Amino acid sequence: MAISNIRYGEGVTKEIGMDLQNLGAKRVCLMTDKNLSQLPPVNAVLNSLAKYGINFQMYDNVRVEPTDQSFLDAITFAKKGEFDAYVAVGGGSVMDTCKAANLYSSSPMSDFLDYVNAPIGKGKPVTVPLKPLIAVPTTAGTGSETTGVAIFDFKELKVKTGIASRAIKPTLGIIDPLHTLSMPERIVANSGFDVLCHALESYTALPYNMRSPCPSNPINRPAYQGSNPISDVWALHALRIVAKYLKRAIRNPEDREARANMHLASAFAGIGFGNAGVHLCHGMSYPISGLVKTYKPKDYNVDHSLVPHGLSVVLTSPAVFAFTAQMHPERHLEAAEILGADIRTARIKDAGFILADTLRKFLFDLNVDDGLAAIGYSKADIPALVKGTLPQERVTKLSPRPQTEEDLSALFEASMKLY
Amino acid sequence: MAISNIRYGEGVTKEIGMDLQNLGAKRVCLMTDKNLSQLPPVNAVLNSLAKYGINFQMYDNVRVEPTDQSFLDAITFAKKGEFDAYVAVGGGSVMDTCKAANLYSSSPMSDFLDYVNAPIGKGKPVTVPLKPLIAVPTTAGTGSETTGVAIFDFKELKVKTGIASRAIKPTLGIIDPLHTLSMPERIVANSGFDVLCHALESYTALPYNMRSPCPSNPINRPAYQGSNPISDVWALHALRIVAKYLKRAIRNPEDREARANMHLASAFAGIGFGNAGVHLCHGMSYPISGLVKTYKPKDYNVDHSLVPHGLSVVLTSPAVFAFTAQMHPERHLEAAEILGADIRTARIKDAGFILADTLRKFLFDLNVDDGLAAIGYSKADIPALVKGTLPQERVTKLSPRPQTEEDLSALFEASMKLY
Repeated sequence: MAISNIRYGEGVTKEIGMDLQNLGAKRVCLMTDKNLSQLPPVNAVLNSLAKYGINFQMYDNVRVEPTDQSFLDAITFAKKGEFDAYVAVGGGSVMDTCKAANLYSSSPMSDFLDYVNAPIGKGKPVTVPLKPLIAVPTTAGTGSETTGVAIFDFKELKVKTGIASRAIKPTLGIIDPLHTLSMPERIVANSGFDVLCHALESYTALPYNMRSPCPSNPINRPAYQGSNPISDVWALHALRIVAKYLKRAIRNPEDREARANMHLASAFAGIGFGNAGVHLCHGMSYPISGLVKTYKPKDYNVDHSLVPHGLSVVLTSPAVFAFTAQMHPERHLEAAEILGADIRTARIKDAGFILADTLRKFLFDLNVDDGLAAIGYSKADIPALVKGTLPQERVTKLSPRPQTEEDLSALFEASMKLY
Repeated sequence: MAISNIRYGEGVTKEIGMDLQNLGAKRVCLMTDKNLSQLPPVNAVLNSLAKYGINFQMYDNVRVEPTDQSFLDAITFAKKGEFDAYVAVGGGSVMDTCKAANLYSSSPMSDFLDYVNAPIGKGKPVTVPLKPLIAVPTTAGTGSETTGVAIFDFKELKVKTGIASRAIKPTLGIIDPLHTLSMPERIVANSGFDVLCHALESYTALPYNMRSPCPSNPINRPAYQGSNPISDVWALHALRIVAKYLKRAIRNPEDREARANMHLASAFAGIGFGNAGVHLCHGMSYPISGLVKTYKPKDYNVDHSLVPHGLSVVLTSPAVFAFTAQMHPERHLEAAEILGADIRTARIKDAGFILADTLRKFLFDLNVDDGLAAIGYSKADIPALVKGTLPQERVTKLSPRPQTEEDLSALFEASMKLY
């Protein structure tokens, strides 16, 4: 169980120049994306770098929902720059790209596939020292500021995969809720759904002591270890915050209390899933994003089709938890209660249906697209979606209930329409 | 907010030889105390070191409730040994001694007072790199495996003080609940009271954003930052476990569930107070321990008088929380409820009395000595106890309610007799 350092508070971003001075940084790489480069979070960082005379180069070419190619572009920039510290200002796409840039520029002889999760890549352990990376999240969803995970779209295989190693975890996460005030409504919603699923999946993941085989050396333990008494604390706490604040944060950009709480919940859920792992919603989400056809979500200012990560995750959640509940029904029921269900007369064997219904109502209230059909998929796509899920073993094997290809087909089919 | 790595599970101690191999350790210092050196936790470590061929030297001269002199003895051993890794197997006394040995042998030119907390020492920041330290707690109390704090008795001044720096935090805490099965009844009780007070004090500590002055550079922030949204999660969670399991853990050594849960609660509360800090119970406890006359507690196999740390902390807790409640009455009431009080008809202005009564009942049920008088103090000692509290600014200033010398006198007087 490893947890990053985080600093929390309105305005704490202004200290980042001092942090870099304290780290002795002489050549800093500031990563962000084109939209953010014009917005207050990046301005706050630039002001602090100027105030403390920090020498830096900015890379604002991060792709929203990054690909192997966009990772490689950032890595090339990082290798050329010979940086001694990194700052990532953005959502998961920026933070993940920056982790990859830091990793591969610190390990310049490695092939890209060396560190990519098996079975797609070689999943080699990271043994080189990395440079310090300070992450400044601007969304309330990914929790990437607390995790050792970097996710990208592998274009050739049309599938999302990633790199997972404690070594790429940021040195410091600066959680400044002021940054969430610039988030548009759908970005708040979709990133919030990611928090919701991080919490639900890590709380219901296969328990850490039921994983097998048990690695013979602790150094070979995966970053995702299964649910455990520590990640449970974070998952439940994050879920309670989501239940209380997500709707408010989406509906009212001026609701600072709600947005600040969701910003913290994102980090809390990150600490939880960063150790416990996620399972089927995330495993199935990668082909949902990777196989996107023409869907362009509202509020995302990008030039390519994309299914936002949080949306790709949450659309299967009712079906997934109806499927997994038989393994830990009491946990599923507890989650449903936290999300507002009245469980006083509930039967334990109905836990899955109750949580699924609660999630459907939650999503309906928030105007979420009506299932996979609403974002461009049909029954004919199911075999491809299943095929894209199979390589996601790293997470799917953490499902509390093992699943066959037929099970996955049924889960996708049940997720075509929600309401 | 910085959190150590911890590993949890029955039997995980057997992996420690592999961990040391993974760290590339060639000369390991194993620290423990004379009693423990004959007991199963040390045996488990020795077996693993032998199995993996780890070269080590054992230092079993750690003093229970260490002093400046006992720290110096351990430091001398460490300097001579030129170790490249440390393993501490024991309670807070062992872990704290090992942290000091690691620190001063890594900074051989420093005077002992350089790193001791101001105003007693110079409180210099630690800038030298330390060796890896793996902590294996054998009590369920201190949480020292998760903190950057090392406490000792400064004999000359008859006062407890310590060293506080994130730099001395263990690299890894191995929380193996099997080790708590060898704890005698009073050690379970007293170390459990430490968990109780860590949780209560860190939850009621001055909030992080009300501390002043605010350091101009984040590197100068103290380890103890005041209560905050993250430490609150740990404090409340630990308090709930204490409420549920402490009595069971004390009364029945065979109650593995209770002892395992208290072992985890100790680490949880450690993560909470290690970031938020503690306040008056701890600040006042240092002279209570430091000025001990002839008290020899049951179940402690030592050749000197001592007031166990947990006991010295908990005896003032009813008076302290009756005093501090006016600043955060709702938090005090919430704590009382978690500890079993019926607060349905409680008035908020009675929060302090309610929590104090709840604590008195809790302690009475557990056969705790009836106040400071029962451990050898009288009214005549109060001026010396107050004088010994005044240098404990590092913690007393985290009290939510500022206190005068008269206030401290009144708190000691109110703690002479509890029932």
